[in-house]
Amino acid sequence: MNYRVIFSTIGRVIITEALLLLLPLLVSVIYLEKCAFSFLITIGVATAVGLIFIFVAKPKNQLIFSKEGFVTVALAWIFVSLIGCLPFIFSSEIPDFIDAFFETVSGFTTTGSTILTGDRIEGLSKGILFWRSFTHWIGGMGVLVFVMAITSKNPDRSIHILRAEMPGPSVDKLVPRFRDTAKILYLIYIGLTALLAIFLLFGGMSLFESVVYAFGTAGTGGFATRGTSIAGYNAYIQWVLTVGMFLFGVNFNLYYLILIGRFKSILKSTELKVYFAMVFLSITGIVINTCVVSTNFVFSDVVRNSAFQVTSIVSTTGFTTIDITALPEFSRTILFILMFIGGCAGSTSGGFKLSRAIILAKSARSELKRALHPRNANRIKFDGKYVSDGTVKSVANYLVLYLISLLILFLILSLDNTTFETNITAAVSAFNNVGPAYGLAATDFVCYSGLSKVVLSLAMMLGRLEIYPILLTIAPSTWIKK
Amino acid sequence: MNYRVIFSTIGRVIITEALLLLLPLLVSVIYLEKCAFSFLITIGVATAVGLIFIFVAKPKNQLIFSKEGFVTVALAWIFVSLIGCLPFIFSSEIPDFIDAFFETVSGFTTTGSTILTGDRIEGLSKGILFWRSFTHWIGGMGVLVFVMAITSKNPDRSIHILRAEMPGPSVDKLVPRFRDTAKILYLIYIGLTALLAIFLLFGGMSLFESVVYAFGTAGTGGFATRGTSIAGYNAYIQWVLTVGMFLFGVNFNLYYLILIGRFKSILKSTELKVYFAMVFLSITGIVINTCVVSTNFVFSDVVRNSAFQVTSIVSTTGFTTIDITALPEFSRTILFILMFIGGCAGSTSGGFKLSRAIILAKSARSELKRALHPRNANRIKFDGKYVSDGTVKSVANYLVLYLISLLILFLILSLDNTTFETNITAAVSAFNNVGPAYGLAATDFVCYSGLSKVVLSLAMMLGRLEIYPILLTIAPSTWIKK
Repeated sequence: MNYRVIFSTIGRVIITEALLLLLPLLVSVIYLEKCAFSFLITIGVATAVGLIFIFVAKPKNQLIFSKEGFVTVALAWIFVSLIGCLPFIFSSEIPDFIDAFFETVSGFTTTGSTILTGDRIEGLSKGILFWRSFTHWIGGMGVLVFVMAITSKNPDRSIHILRAEMPGPSVDKLVPRFRDTAKILYLIYIGLTALLAIFLLFGGMSLFESVVYAFGTAGTGGFATRGTSIAGYNAYIQWVLTVGMFLFGVNFNLYYLILIGRFKSILKSTELKVYFAMVFLSITGIVINTCVVSTNFVFSDVVRNSAFQVTSIVSTTGFTTIDITALPEFSRTILFILMFIGGCAGSTSGGFKLSRAIILAKSARSELKRALHPRNANRIKFDGKYVSDGTVKSVANYLVLYLISLLILFLILSLDNTTFETNITAAVSAFNNVGPAYGLAATDFVCYSGLSKVVLSLAMMLGRLEIYPILLTIAPSTWIKK
Repeated sequence: MNYRVIFSTIGRVIITEALLLLLPLLVSVIYLEKCAFSFLITIGVATAVGLIFIFVAKPKNQLIFSKEGFVTVALAWIFVSLIGCLPFIFSSEIPDFIDAFFETVSGFTTTGSTILTGDRIEGLSKGILFWRSFTHWIGGMGVLVFVMAITSKNPDRSIHILRAEMPGPSVDKLVPRFRDTAKILYLIYIGLTALLAIFLLFGGMSLFESVVYAFGTAGTGGFATRGTSIAGYNAYIQWVLTVGMFLFGVNFNLYYLILIGRFKSILKSTELKVYFAMVFLSITGIVINTCVVSTNFVFSDVVRNSAFQVTSIVSTTGFTTIDITALPEFSRTILFILMFIGGCAGSTSGGFKLSRAIILAKSARSELKRALHPRNANRIKFDGKYVSDGTVKSVANYLVLYLISLLILFLILSLDNTTFETNITAAVSAFNNVGPAYGLAATDFVCYSGLSKVVLSLAMMLGRLEIYPILLTIAPSTWIKK
């Protein structure tokens, strides 16, 4: 294990975090808030820790393997969260360490579950609210990808770290050099976020709110500035966010293809077509279900709320305009299933990822065909290209790890003895980085014990980093020398 | 499609069912019950339908492929259930067709879910109660395997039909000729059932009850003669049934190995070891959880009830001694997870099957190892033998079909707008042939609409026949000529 590379990399990540903390510091200074001091102290701590890591762990060689990649990513996320929760504690706005840690992990992993009740959220200072949503935006695209792309002298050598952090079944290189790919993706991310903020400004939001909600949407996070989430905003804003959440659930590579004018390639994307169809069918299902069950409703409201809820859940953002736990059962089941699947690979959304689900469904279909005609070879295609058996196997193994993790999480949460519905939906919601759950955890996670909050924090990271980094870091065989 | 072979085979199955119906007829005659007439009429109908199928569809050739195998099995199970529900309707003890069909399918698939409330069960005649539990025993070992083994001139040619019906990832041949394998397994089944009935007799059960509960346990079904299931019986009987349910969840091949004295081979069984460990850990977990949560309990009762509930659920039998929906959440979650997994392959139990779960878990573990050491080949072993990539792929595809089926079932059930907990546990319970669910379906399925009952019936068959036969029979591509 090349500890020096691991810790010097983490050091650079922490320094970057210190720099990013200047932004909420600025906000709190503008609003003349006390919490400015807590940001200042945190920046001091981060700089000190970061510099110590960098100078003490000066690497003798840059040689690392996949093992170091996974460990670096897992530890970096834990350190970033530990430092990220300091402003909440220092400002006494979330004085409890476990609560502050949960909230920060929920932020960076773009989950958006909160341990704050509605009135406590509305009592937060502007600086803290800004930082809370800014963590979504930072975590959305990946902490290490950013640091590697900007600071690494030879980023292509860091491929093990990048592979360990990037979401989705495969890391596509848009252009030959990884650093350039990352830069393009970041420019798209920044551009779309700015565009969204402008649209929100036009809807009558303040500049502060526009930026905060743009962060929450771009990272598919879900932290709001009000206890009622988006319910209190006007229809225009709700529609803008709906479109925004939908777009940030799409593979960013497609936006690059739009930028370079290759529109035809977009139409070939299997995942995009299924994403469209799934969102459309889910909205239709919920609209019909709501109209059949309700006796008194305004049709345009039903359509708007259904579209909002579907895109919010499928992109794993987690904003709400209505009490989703009070929806009729059929609608709730649709949303519950969407929680599992999540958005497209290569987007900021969490979940199992649509491309994986499609590959597995196609593989199962080809197995059914083979049962009928055992001699026919049935290879499966994705985006017009054949998928190798190795890829199918990896995806299937990921599904198994995903299910095992989910069941263990569900089992541990049930120790709290709340309700079956609360526990199973909280497990699914946290692991897939969605945010809200049903039952007692519909708006916040106050009902859970400290142990459960720590386990949920771990689950959010496990889900965000797609299991491997966290699991391999806690596996003894990673650390034992052979 | 060789329709003649399909229908002549189904004809023979129906004639066999007519013969099996002589047993409940005898019971109802002994007890001088009116329902004797309904059995008599059903036997007449079955004989007529069976003979018509056999003589009209006289096969020109015996050549069939896997396609015919799946269709034969699916249609045979549907026909057997349609005829099997006639005594319930003719006797007016379950006059509603959908209810009677549900109850019969629940019987043959060894699920044990009922649409009868407790007082209605206790109002049933002895003949009907006997038939209800006898369907468990018939369905436990497979309807077609029995018919093929006894009546087919060349049973090895019928391998496509047998493969389509036999549970578990692979059909093991104990001895070279399939007919002999089936006979050995049937003798073990009959012997163990008789042994269990004798042990129950010693516990003070009447001969009638002993036989009925032996059927329900051997088939891992779960229909009881009382509304309170096994709660009213003494501790000895509860322990006998616990051991019985545990033993019928074990792969029958192991009993054959015991019979021929190869004890060492048994100890090599990976599945058996995991089964033991899983049952032991689950019981321990529930005992501790119950003792921690409860303020007032008798320890021996807690141990007995926990052992009973765990073996009942893991073997997918479904008898109960306590209200499982009132257990603390941690215990309920353990039982819920056990519902998914089920017992060993080659047993009468339902569920995903432990051997499949082990193979997938090992495959996922080897993938984790490969992530650390990409160059190492990590082949997985089961029972000391290497598992081929093809087997792993098939099992993974089965998991995908299993999950998709489960989610669709959950979605359809939620149209009834009962509760989240009821719908998800009812879906899991029906599909895995367990029996009881949580929430409103803890003791019976009265809360569901006609549509849901039909869908649940289909789900029970889908689960019992392990998806392929039913799914391929309703797939258009099976019927379209190329």
